[in-house]
Amino acid sequence: MQGTQGRHVLAVRGEEASLRPDLLAVEEPLEIRVTAGGRCFPLAVTMRTPGHDFELAAGLLYSEGVVRRPEDIAAIVSGDESEPHPDHVVEVRLAAGVPFDPQSLSRHLYTSSACGVCGRASLEQLRGLCPRAPVGDMLLTPALLQGLPSRLQEAQGLFARTGGVHAAALFDREGRLILLREDVGRHNAMDKLVGALLLSGRLPASDTLVLVSGRASFELAQKAVLAGIPALAALGAPSSLAVQVAEAYGLTLVGFLGARRFNVYAGAHRLAGEGTSAP
Amino acid sequence: MQGTQGRHVLAVRGEEASLRPDLLAVEEPLEIRVTAGGRCFPLAVTMRTPGHDFELAAGLLYSEGVVRRPEDIAAIVSGDESEPHPDHVVEVRLAAGVPFDPQSLSRHLYTSSACGVCGRASLEQLRGLCPRAPVGDMLLTPALLQGLPSRLQEAQGLFARTGGVHAAALFDREGRLILLREDVGRHNAMDKLVGALLLSGRLPASDTLVLVSGRASFELAQKAVLAGIPALAALGAPSSLAVQVAEAYGLTLVGFLGARRFNVYAGAHRLAGEGTSAP
Repeated sequence: MQGTQGRHVLAVRGEEASLRPDLLAVEEPLEIRVTAGGRCFPLAVTMRTPGHDFELAAGLLYSEGVVRRPEDIAAIVSGDESEPHPDHVVEVRLAAGVPFDPQSLSRHLYTSSACGVCGRASLEQLRGLCPRAPVGDMLLTPALLQGLPSRLQEAQGLFARTGGVHAAALFDREGRLILLREDVGRHNAMDKLVGALLLSGRLPASDTLVLVSGRASFELAQKAVLAGIPALAALGAPSSLAVQVAEAYGLTLVGFLGARRFNVYAGAHRLAGEGTSAP
Repeated sequence: MQGTQGRHVLAVRGEEASLRPDLLAVEEPLEIRVTAGGRCFPLAVTMRTPGHDFELAAGLLYSEGVVRRPEDIAAIVSGDESEPHPDHVVEVRLAAGVPFDPQSLSRHLYTSSACGVCGRASLEQLRGLCPRAPVGDMLLTPALLQGLPSRLQEAQGLFARTGGVHAAALFDREGRLILLREDVGRHNAMDKLVGALLLSGRLPASDTLVLVSGRASFELAQKAVLAGIPALAALGAPSSLAVQVAEAYGLTLVGFLGARRFNVYAGAHRLAGEGTSAP
């Protein structure tokens, strides 16, 4: 299966050890390049799980504000055969007239955290990251939300057995799965999801909610807002800044979502059928 | 408690909702600057949990190869009062004569994954990231390893209740906790740990092992190798590239570590008392 790799490992149980087959989530570098005005700029190298690479590149560029509509992209191609690893390269060719300023995207260092503003030259830019309008409206019920984790688990299937991938799953207002993307990087999973929506002309995704398998960071909240998704649910905890972003943009932020429980950290006005006012 | 933030949330259990107190892990931006040769360069902005910021900056610069010894750092200071948020800025002043080339660190875009090579202009650089020698030797027993998760849990204490932080814990060869660092970003937790070791003159940490609370990515394996730590254990899964790095540098890589089980993905020669050859 693409994205996984079989391997024998030394499995220790108590004091007993044996060789057993195991499945690893594949992590490999992908270089994303942008071609604009006849010039090609290497933009980023991300460690990702192979698969849906074009969507990953498109989603990343969308979240960075480089592209805003599917028409902004003339073509997306893999590296050519002159490359040592053509499958480790994706080039996004912008349509004529789409403005692109590599300097404005220039950063000096990555950072490794659940980041997304990594390397931006100043903190001030962070505050300008979410200029778009607040997300739209939709009602959610506790039963709908509590049914999502099991649907995510079913949909993940074999891939989840590696224990090593993050998932981002998009559901409609009835709780039906629309789209699932997985990756060793949780932001990659979200970028792949947003990229898929962008490339198929489905942004803003105003009538959906997204469930992520890990924690809800600032950046995941920001990506949801930028995609026009009105609710972000996480199996894990949200961070303080994710809650702030959610409040500022009217995003419903749900954490610790399980089959019989969840917490609402922001945007509780979308919760129907509960007798408590919004926190 | 620093690094956590109290908050009331709408807690839904089945169909019942109530307002309850909750504890969030704080996520805030930190800009890291480097001053060398009388000039100050903004290097990175990372989303991190406040606390141990100097160590975070030092560890990050160590992993990037900017500093190699404590003497390479003349001073680490917070932002001054002319800044809008002095506590969101850390400036590392390099000692005279420490070479620093901001261009060689230049990247064009972050990426958000469990990355660490984000924005490097070419994939080739990735291969040059781990030039240092293989890590040293040490024997580990199943009983020692299986005792670590409960020690990590005890040590995390209140902070772990947010459910939103990653931990990196350093243990000696008898399994005694030496150092624990926590952060919303798992790479930050590791950078804080390595930075603390650097600043106190304890690198390479050749007689220790490190336990991380999440998954073991390429970059965590790389940071362990660079710090001279011979074993990396994770409560979660390793990625394929983490296994490759571990194999290349003789790092013992343990995944899915629990009280009665674990898997060894590389470096099984350090496992004493098991009757199976290395995978």
